[in-house]
Amino acid sequence: MVATIVFAGGETGPWAVTRVDAPCGDPLPATPRVSMTTAEPDTPDPVGTWTLRGVVSNLRYATSAERGALGAVQPPLARPAATRAALIPIRKSPAWWDLAQDERRSIFEETSHHTRIGLGYLPAVARRLHHCRDLGGPFDFLTWFEFAPEHEAGFDRLVAALRATREWTYVERECDIRLGRAPAG
Amino acid sequence: MVATIVFAGGETGPWAVTRVDAPCGDPLPATPRVSMTTAEPDTPDPVGTWTLRGVVSNLRYATSAERGALGAVQPPLARPAATRAALIPIRKSPAWWDLAQDERRSIFEETSHHTRIGLGYLPAVARRLHHCRDLGGPFDFLTWFEFAPEHEAGFDRLVAALRATREWTYVERECDIRLGRAPAG
Repeated sequence: MVATIVFAGGETGPWAVTRVDAPCGDPLPATPRVSMTTAEPDTPDPVGTWTLRGVVSNLRYATSAERGALGAVQPPLARPAATRAALIPIRKSPAWWDLAQDERRSIFEETSHHTRIGLGYLPAVARRLHHCRDLGGPFDFLTWFEFAPEHEAGFDRLVAALRATREWTYVERECDIRLGRAPAG
Repeated sequence: MVATIVFAGGETGPWAVTRVDAPCGDPLPATPRVSMTTAEPDTPDPVGTWTLRGVVSNLRYATSAERGALGAVQPPLARPAATRAALIPIRKSPAWWDLAQDERRSIFEETSHHTRIGLGYLPAVARRLHHCRDLGGPFDFLTWFEFAPEHEAGFDRLVAALRATREWTYVERECDIRLGRAPAG
């Protein structure tokens, strides 16, 4: 069973928005706060200016060796020092989704080195990928990242490196919401 | 954007149930009829004893060469002579979904020859695969098949061949609902 996660942008939530960019396509409406919660059956979604749902699902491209390399260094979410976060919703083009599996894999890793680039920023950056294409929303993926303030510049280099790849020529909408953990109270 | 398809088992629908098997795990409740409709936004699901939703999504294992081989011979749905159908919902085990992409691909095709076995029954059998694991229902896939009455014995051989593969050792629930197109009126 997959876990469903709901992101909501609105007036409340533990993450304060520090910056909103839309590198490609329409931006999401700006909100002061963002929340990330696990959806429970028969529980309504949190109220927000926008809500996005995704599922933590199976690997789509990573090989066993790549999973091993990632697993050896990838940190968990919710580290106390990781007080910065980013939510990056992405939609890829119909041309991407029309490709066969080996064609997408080849662009993803052999050409664009998606996993290899990401590995260079571990364990500083924690990441969780949420799939949502099959759910029918406006995006295909919602990726959530957490890192300490001193690693935000490195995170900027990571996303710049990915945006320069051939894989990203298939991205037709991308938002980039930067967040800081809001003071409790 | 993916298309969402809703299957409903109940008292109405254009397909009359002729046989219901559960080769593995719990059966679905028996109903006299089954319908298959495209879900429309803001339209409630059809009423039924059971309803199952799936999406027509991107390829997960097929290579470009395999897609080409399939595309050259696979027939469309709704051929007038194809008055028999089968709906086969399947759920695979957590052990399957925990495998990396290359491990699942290797079992799917290099070991179990899923696509190669299926190709032997084209163009007699039309097929449409619906993904539903990310939707959170009781199954991972809903596969719909259509064929003429004289090809039902061949279809039985096809499903028997697939059930004998290593891939099928990861199947933990499978239903097999056989249908005939009900007389209009």
